Amino acid sequence: MEEIRIGLIGHGFMGHEHEKMLTETEGFRVVGIADMDPKQLEDVKEGLKRYTSNEELFRDPEVQVVLIAANNNQHHDLVLQAARAGKDIICEKPVAMSLEELDDMVRVTKACGVKFTVHHQRRLDRDFRTAKEIFDQGSLGEVYTIKSSLYGFNGNMHDWHVQISEGGGMLYDWGVHLLDQILWMMPGAKLTSVYADIRNVINFEVDDYFKILMRFDNHVTAEVELGTYFLTDKMHDKWFERHWFIGGNQGSAYLDGFAPEGKIVRTAGLLKNVGGERTMTAAGPTRSFGPPPEGKILTEPVPLADTTHKGFFENYRRAYFGEEEFLVQIPETRRVLALMDAVRESGRTGESVRFE
Amino acid sequence: MEEIRIGLIGHGFMGHEHEKMLTETEGFRVVGIADMDPKQLEDVKEGLKRYTSNEELFRDPEVQVVLIAANNNQHHDLVLQAARAGKDIICEKPVAMSLEELDDMVRVTKACGVKFTVHHQRRLDRDFRTAKEIFDQGSLGEVYTIKSSLYGFNGNMHDWHVQISEGGGMLYDWGVHLLDQILWMMPGAKLTSVYADIRNVINFEVDDYFKILMRFDNHVTAEVELGTYFLTDKMHDKWFERHWFIGGNQGSAYLDGFAPEGKIVRTAGLLKNVGGERTMTAAGPTRSFGPPPEGKILTEPVPLADTTHKGFFENYRRAYFGEEEFLVQIPETRRVLALMDAVRESGRTGESVRFE
Repeated sequence: MEEIRIGLIGHGFMGHEHEKMLTETEGFRVVGIADMDPKQLEDVKEGLKRYTSNEELFRDPEVQVVLIAANNNQHHDLVLQAARAGKDIICEKPVAMSLEELDDMVRVTKACGVKFTVHHQRRLDRDFRTAKEIFDQGSLGEVYTIKSSLYGFNGNMHDWHVQISEGGGMLYDWGVHLLDQILWMMPGAKLTSVYADIRNVINFEVDDYFKILMRFDNHVTAEVELGTYFLTDKMHDKWFERHWFIGGNQGSAYLDGFAPEGKIVRTAGLLKNVGGERTMTAAGPTRSFGPPPEGKILTEPVPLADTTHKGFFENYRRAYFGEEEFLVQIPETRRVLALMDAVRESGRTGESVRFE
Repeated sequence: MEEIRIGLIGHGFMGHEHEKMLTETEGFRVVGIADMDPKQLEDVKEGLKRYTSNEELFRDPEVQVVLIAANNNQHHDLVLQAARAGKDIICEKPVAMSLEELDDMVRVTKACGVKFTVHHQRRLDRDFRTAKEIFDQGSLGEVYTIKSSLYGFNGNMHDWHVQISEGGGMLYDWGVHLLDQILWMMPGAKLTSVYADIRNVINFEVDDYFKILMRFDNHVTAEVELGTYFLTDKMHDKWFERHWFIGGNQGSAYLDGFAPEGKIVRTAGLLKNVGGERTMTAAGPTRSFGPPPEGKILTEPVPLADTTHKGFFENYRRAYFGEEEFLVQIPETRRVLALMDAVRESGRTGESVRFE
């Protein structure tokens, strides 16, 4: 099998991940790795080149594709340099720090005739793909709410992620994935309005909590919530992992965990306008809330998606040889960046932002 | 003990509740009950008058206080009539269908020199008072989020609550309580911005789902979410009852259930900007999310509030005789009505509304 020869820039957290993934994936070969910090190159696998500069990597004729896993604020310049060196490019997310940067990248990569895509591997997350499958099946009827959430206990960020100037913060780190998932889940829907709350709960410089409400013209309101310091001791539902809730007028579905567990939930009966019936609860009587009677709640298993992040590179290979489209199209990543701008504006002003 | 003599208008669900509560509460006597529908009077307790009209009740010199538990759209006219008959008034919530109605009521009750308050008994809900106590104690540090939620399985409404013209829908039924609780929890905070999603998921005429985000100038963003068709099969956390989550920079707290169970949750350590450490999860590596190590999550019991709805009438009696203020002040109910207008406007336009 003809190998795609990769040069990797940045041997930090994601650089190590890519090195590992690509040496295990058929059809790829990591030629070598560059990092501004020579210490980061000390543990590069044997047999791979250790470039003393990015320029050395760009000049290496063995390298066909540059995979950029440097700090977020370096993506723009590195993409331009790689393109001008005639290399095809896979860039880590977020692809850029602004729409202007991205438009510049698009202009130059087009002019240089190089392939350009972004590593949005979380389109292949099992929790997300399972949620998407449930949504696509349509068995929940008209969906009114989709909640995607992720909670942590540390409050912390890692390495350069604590610095604004480097493109740090959770909105750039995980937010870009969570928003990309929502947009890609409903590709035909227009996002009409965005309202966001963004906080530095524990961190000094960068955001570590956000709640984002998004109204779409397909009648779905989607919510993305992430907190790095959002605590419970309830571990049975994998609190400190991913959660999805999808509510429709024919049922609900929930998923908990990165390897999701969940159910589709319906009721045995609906919409009875009953008379004076009541439920006595600890807070007094109510007729709409309280424990359901035996047999009222019905469940169905969810169709668990079978995907892994390796799928990103498998698609990349097929697309590289013209057999299909790249999973991640640049205009899609541009829409996510524009949404992040709207999210920040709403967070800053306290007002909703009209989006599309 | 001198009794306060009550005339009750409306012998529906809440009318029955009031009849029961007041015959069990020292210091009150129900003189009699009026209802437009004579069939509703058939089960009035023995010894109480059954008025054939509201006018008959208003003319009864035995009645000191009129308790109005008629459909929401009748509150305005009944308050005016009661005031003009010289009766003191307790009105069910929502006090009015509009600010104009309420202002009219205030004008007339003042002119007639009668006492006027509103039955917001859920200020005494145990779950709410426990949440308020946690918030007031301040041990969570700077609170950034308060979530108040309530989920049901029926999708249904009762009696006249399915009709818009009668003041039906969940925003009027429960929403007015949930919003009143949030405002009363933080009486000094200005509510700057409101964003709301309101739906008819199952019902034809009236709202049965809403999510309301409220930004306050004390840096809290509060969320109220209610769904009458918002399903799970997870009953361990009393899903179909009340829930609270309070998140601060010194810890979180959660409460589940009308008779709440919950914890204050903190961590054994915070804000370590660690290097390349990672957690391998089913969705690939992450450094911020995943199961906490042993000993990381610490819990404390919550200070459970000991309150019941009877407290509403106990306060009423003391306030009636000048010993303290009424628990529910009319300007507070006016603020809730104004907020409900903002909520509806946001729901209709899809844009946030500046509030205070």
